[in-house]
Amino acid sequence: MIKMSDEKYFQNITPRERAIFEGAITMGALFHQFVGTPVSLESADSLENAIKASLELQPCIMHVDVEINREILKDTENEYHYISLTGDMLDVRVVSEYDGIKIVVRMEYVEDLHYPLMYVEEVD
Amino acid sequence: MIKMSDEKYFQNITPRERAIFEGAITMGALFHQFVGTPVSLESADSLENAIKASLELQPCIMHVDVEINREILKDTENEYHYISLTGDMLDVRVVSEYDGIKIVVRMEYVEDLHYPLMYVEEVD
Amino acid sequence: MIKMSDEKYFQNITPRERAIFEGAITMGALFHQFVGTPVSLESADSLENAIKASLELQPCIMHVDVEINREILKDTENEYHYISLTGDMLDVRVVSEYDGIKIVVRMEYVEDLHYPLMYVEEVD
Amino acid sequence: MIKMSDEKYFQNITPRERAIFEGAITMGALFHQFVGTPVSLESADSLENAIKASLELQPCIMHVDVEINREILKDTENEYHYISLTGDMLDVRVVSEYDGIKIVVRMEYVEDLHYPLMYVEEVD
Repeated sequence: MIKMSDEKYFQNITPRERAIFEGAITMGALFHQFVGTPVSLESADSLENAIKASLELQPCIMHVDVEINREILKDTENEYHYISLTGDMLDVRVVSEYDGIKIVVRMEYVEDLHYPLMYVEEVD
Repeated sequence: MIKMSDEKYFQNITPRERAIFEGAITMGALFHQFVGTPVSLESADSLENAIKASLELQPCIMHVDVEINREILKDTENEYHYISLTGDMLDVRVVSEYDGIKIVVRMEYVEDLHYPLMYVEEVD
Repeated sequence: MIKMSDEKYFQNITPRERAIFEGAITMGALFHQFVGTPVSLESADSLENAIKASLELQPCIMHVDVEINREILKDTENEYHYISLTGDMLDVRVVSEYDGIKIVVRMEYVEDLHYPLMYVEEVD
Repeated sequence: MIKMSDEKYFQNITPRERAIFEGAITMGALFHQFVGTPVSLESADSLENAIKASLELQPCIMHVDVEINREILKDTENEYHYISLTGDMLDVRVVSEYDGIKIVVRMEYVEDLHYPLMYVEEVD
């Protein structure tokens, strides 16, 4: 479905660039919306579901797959039995598509970099 | 269950004050963690579930009840069919308890105040 | 200044409880609004200023004092030279007052608890 | 400066795509990190400064220019004299660059769309 905004605002980039653009917005949004959320082994499923359902609403987003690292949750050492969600606990794939061109944006914690890296994992 | 932190850090306030303290933290947390999340009629249930499951992890929180206003979601006028969660869409009750004393913190949008007001709705 | 909302919504709690309530909301808000923000030695001052200026707007809040741990920022090991703000980097005091009664809410990372604890540090 | 991550993770996209990718991540991050923050005419400057300083830390980001709409802040009708930051109050330009290729990502509230639209405003 072509939207009014597509015609007016996105004529200066290619379909592949558009797919990359929207996938990247969604990955940045996901990280900064949900980092800090209290999470435990018991609540992780519902948080994954909400992250997926909310980010799949964004333009051109076909699919969001989120895994919160259960090993880190198991190792929670405090007496409150939950921790705040951080980037190193997240493994995410966002599939975006525009005009038949599909790309996959990935976020994963890269030990060598000490950093939750976002990159384009697959391009059409 | 008495926690180490209770003995050391909370001797200067009453059980009722402790329940108010923890309920209020959770309400402030809820608002500022989740406002901004993309939401639609389709995703609202999963977002309510995640908000509830994550905030119920916090100290002294017995129960969190969240309603996202479906009428506002139905009226979404943009071509993307979702909006960002705002305080005026939220009606929340947080039940907190310490040492047998229970209180209810409420947040609701008060039209007369043009403000999503947080207040103590019930005290033991 | 007595507000309309004070007369209608806060008759069931004491001034001290009100001060605790508002201080606690603000501490929960602070944590969940700003955790996740990119931060470095260079940007820490401006982030502290914005946290302080924004949270001091909230009802009954007299003063917010925020320190972001510079030692942790110095130790940033990744090649991007910044990290995401986490609770263990924050030391915060929120001074709230209602009807002449003042309290101080503190948040600090407590090593023994492996937890960024929020508690009432001073009561009138 | 070429980073380890550039060599390993970003060989499958062009420099222009990389600049778009990083600019888009930063725009999504900005929106979802800061929407919800209490803001008034008095605090707007410090919030703009913090947004700018924190997002300019992200990879490939040369410049972030943020304007919070003062007219909306002036019209705040509630007795608390502040509101929560929303997307319709923001006008943002993010300049990103990779390997000499520069792009500008813009976010502005588009009345016709009832939506805070993010798009690529300028491409090299």
